[in-house]
Amino acid sequence: MTRPHRTRVGVIGAGPAGLLLGHLLHRAGIDTVVLEARTRDYVERRQRAGILEQGTIDILRACGAGDRMDREGLRHDGIELRFDRQAHRIDFPSLTGGRGVMVYAQTEVVKDLIALRLESGAPLLFEAEAVAVEDFDTTSPRVRYRHEGDEHVLECDVVVACDGFHGIGRRSLPAHALQVFERVYPFAWLGILASVPPSCEELIYAHHERGFALHSMRSPEVSRLYLQVAPDEDVDAWSDARIWDELATRFAVDGDWELATGPITDKGITPMRSFVAEPLRHGRLFLAGDAAHIVPPTGAKGLNLAVADVALLAELLLRWFSEGDEAALDSYSRQALRRVWRAEHFSYLMTTMLHRDPGQDSFAHRLQLSQLHYTVSSTAAATTLAENYVGLPTV
Amino acid sequence: MTRPHRTRVGVIGAGPAGLLLGHLLHRAGIDTVVLEARTRDYVERRQRAGILEQGTIDILRACGAGDRMDREGLRHDGIELRFDRQAHRIDFPSLTGGRGVMVYAQTEVVKDLIALRLESGAPLLFEAEAVAVEDFDTTSPRVRYRHEGDEHVLECDVVVACDGFHGIGRRSLPAHALQVFERVYPFAWLGILASVPPSCEELIYAHHERGFALHSMRSPEVSRLYLQVAPDEDVDAWSDARIWDELATRFAVDGDWELATGPITDKGITPMRSFVAEPLRHGRLFLAGDAAHIVPPTGAKGLNLAVADVALLAELLLRWFSEGDEAALDSYSRQALRRVWRAEHFSYLMTTMLHRDPGQDSFAHRLQLSQLHYTVSSTAAATTLAENYVGLPTV
Repeated sequence: MTRPHRTRVGVIGAGPAGLLLGHLLHRAGIDTVVLEARTRDYVERRQRAGILEQGTIDILRACGAGDRMDREGLRHDGIELRFDRQAHRIDFPSLTGGRGVMVYAQTEVVKDLIALRLESGAPLLFEAEAVAVEDFDTTSPRVRYRHEGDEHVLECDVVVACDGFHGIGRRSLPAHALQVFERVYPFAWLGILASVPPSCEELIYAHHERGFALHSMRSPEVSRLYLQVAPDEDVDAWSDARIWDELATRFAVDGDWELATGPITDKGITPMRSFVAEPLRHGRLFLAGDAAHIVPPTGAKGLNLAVADVALLAELLLRWFSEGDEAALDSYSRQALRRVWRAEHFSYLMTTMLHRDPGQDSFAHRLQLSQLHYTVSSTAAATTLAENYVGLPTV
Repeated sequence: MTRPHRTRVGVIGAGPAGLLLGHLLHRAGIDTVVLEARTRDYVERRQRAGILEQGTIDILRACGAGDRMDREGLRHDGIELRFDRQAHRIDFPSLTGGRGVMVYAQTEVVKDLIALRLESGAPLLFEAEAVAVEDFDTTSPRVRYRHEGDEHVLECDVVVACDGFHGIGRRSLPAHALQVFERVYPFAWLGILASVPPSCEELIYAHHERGFALHSMRSPEVSRLYLQVAPDEDVDAWSDARIWDELATRFAVDGDWELATGPITDKGITPMRSFVAEPLRHGRLFLAGDAAHIVPPTGAKGLNLAVADVALLAELLLRWFSEGDEAALDSYSRQALRRVWRAEHFSYLMTTMLHRDPGQDSFAHRLQLSQLHYTVSSTAAATTLAENYVGLPTV
C-alpha cells in the first residue's frame, strides 16, 4: 500500500455530479480529488440523458461550463404528447414565464467538465476504483482506492459519493443507516441512436396501446428514439426494421406525419426504477446524484437532480469551510430531498400516465386517457407538466 | 296484471337524477312517469352527498328548484388540506375565476324536487318497484313494475334508468352490451352526523398516517364527519367516544385548533368504489347517475355527475321530441362519458392522495406527501384541484 495522501473534499465518480462538484469547489479555492473507476474514453462515450432544465443551464453557464452547450445545444420550448392518433403540444414559455429546456447530451456535459478539470490541473484520476469509504463518522474520513495496480488511501475532510446507483459510496454505509424507497416498473426502454435528422423539432411522448414511445434527438443529424419493451427483453430480438416499424406504429397520427428512418448506430435496454436512499448525509460522507436516488427517465430528471444536488452541496460546503457553519451541512439532506421527491413524483406520474402496464386493468387505462385529455385541455394541468419539466425554481 | 298505461319518458328512480329529469321534462311539456321503489319518507331521509358544484347550482336555479338551496345552503369558497400537522387552504374563486360550491345536502335537494313534482301534479309513484325493462331495442320500450300489490306495465317512448348502482335499469341489459370498468378500494368511510356546530367554516380533508378524515357539515348546527376505516369494519366497534378521539387525532395540527364534539345522531359505513358501465344508451333505454357510474365520495362528484347527466339528457331528448333529431340521442353517451371520466380520474386522484392504503409501500407514502406539498405550493397544482372540485364547465 502506498503512502496516504490528503485533500479537503474527496469526490468519488467522474459523472456529471462528481465533475461539476469538483469544478465548483476548485473555482472557490477548495482542494479536491476526483476518483473515477473507468477510463476517460469510457466515461466520455457513455450514453445517458439529454435534457437540461433551465436551472441546470443556469448553473453550467454561471460556472463557465456552458460555452459549448450554448453553441451546440438545442433550445426547446415545448414537447408534444401523442395519444388516440392526435398530437398535442405543451408550450413551456407561455406556461412557465419564459422557461424552457436545452437538448444537450449528458455525455457532452461530461466531456466539457473533464476538459475544464484537466485544464485547471486539479486532480482527476481515471481507472481509480474506490473500494471503501472509511471513518466517515469521524472528522477524517478516508477513501481506499486502487490505481495502477496499487492500493491508495485518500484522507479527506469530507467525502462525496457521486458514484451512481451501484457505487461504493452508499454501499459503505451500514444497512440500518439508510431508509430505502423503491419501485421497479414492469417495463423497460429499448433506446436507439440513429444517423437521421429528427422527424420533429421537439420531443414526442407517445401513449399507445402497444406501449410508450419517445422521439428525442442528440443533434440536428442524430435522432434518439425509445420504445417501451418488457423488462427482460432481448435486444437481439429487435432488428433495425422491426424497431422502425414499431416506432412508426406508435407515433402514427391522423394526418400527414412521417417518421424518418436511418442507420441505427447504438441499441440498448434501460431498466425503469424509482429509488431513494435517505438521508443524504452520514457524518462526513455525502451522497449525491444517482448514488442516492434514481428516477425513471420519462421525466428527464436524473441528470438535473444530480446537478441540483451538487450545486446545493457546493454552496453549503463553502459555507462550512469558510465559516464553520455546521448547520449548513446539516441542511443538505433535507433541502435536497425536497427537490428529489418532487422529481420522483413527477417522474412517476409521467411514467404511469404514458406507459402501458401489462398488469393494468381497463379502468386504469381509461384513467390514463382521461388524464392525458385533461393535461392537454386544461391550462392548469398543462402548467403542472410544463413547470415540472422545465424544473421548479424552488420546492 | 292491470291494463298498461302510457307515457313519453318513463323514469325509474326518484333520487336526484330521476326527479330532476322528470322536472326538466315536465317544464318542457313532456309527459313523464317517475317510479320509485321506496317510500317517500325513506327517500327523503336517505343521507348522501352534500356538495353542489357551481354547474349544479346553476341548473337547479335555472329550473326553479334552487329557492330553498339559496336560502339555506352554505356557499363555500375553498377547502382545507391537512397533513404533517399543518393546515393549507385552497381558495376556489381566486383559482377558478370566481367559482365555488354550495353545501346543501342531497336529501334536501330530493325534498325540494319531490315537493315541486307533487305540486305540478305530474305522476310520481312511491313504492312502485320496477322489475324489468323490456323491448328497449324497439320504439316501444316498457317498464314492468309492482305497485300496491299489482304488476303494471308502463309503455314509453324512452326509458331512463336513474335507479342507482343496484337498480334494474342496467341489470336489464345483457352482459355483452356493457363494458364495465371498476375499482374497489381497500378502505371505507365511517360517517357520522352530529348535533354540533362545525369546527371549521369550510371542509377539511386530512391525510394522516392512521388514515383519512373529512370534516364536513350539513348546516350551521349539524356536523358531518368521516373516518377512513377497513372495508369490513363493524360500525358497532365504534363508540361515540372512540369516534371523537380518532377524529381529534387525525385532524390535529400544530397551533390552536380544537374539534368540537356533540351527540352523534347517525352512524354508517360507506364503501369506496369506482365504476363505469359503457355505453349510456341502449336503443331507447338510457342510463344516468349511479345506475351508470359510481365514484368514491372523496371528490364530491356523485350527485353532481347525476345532475349533469340528466341536464344533458333532458336537452337532447327535447331536441329529439321536437325535431326528431336522432343524432342528439346518439351523442348522449359520448358527451356524458367525457365528464364522467374526468370525475372518475379526479375522484381517484383525491382518494389515492388522501387515504392510507394498507397495502402501500413507503415509496407510495412519500409520493403522497410530495403530491400534497406540491398541491399546496404550486398555483397550477392548486388550480387543478380547485377547478375539478368546483366542476369544469366543459370537458
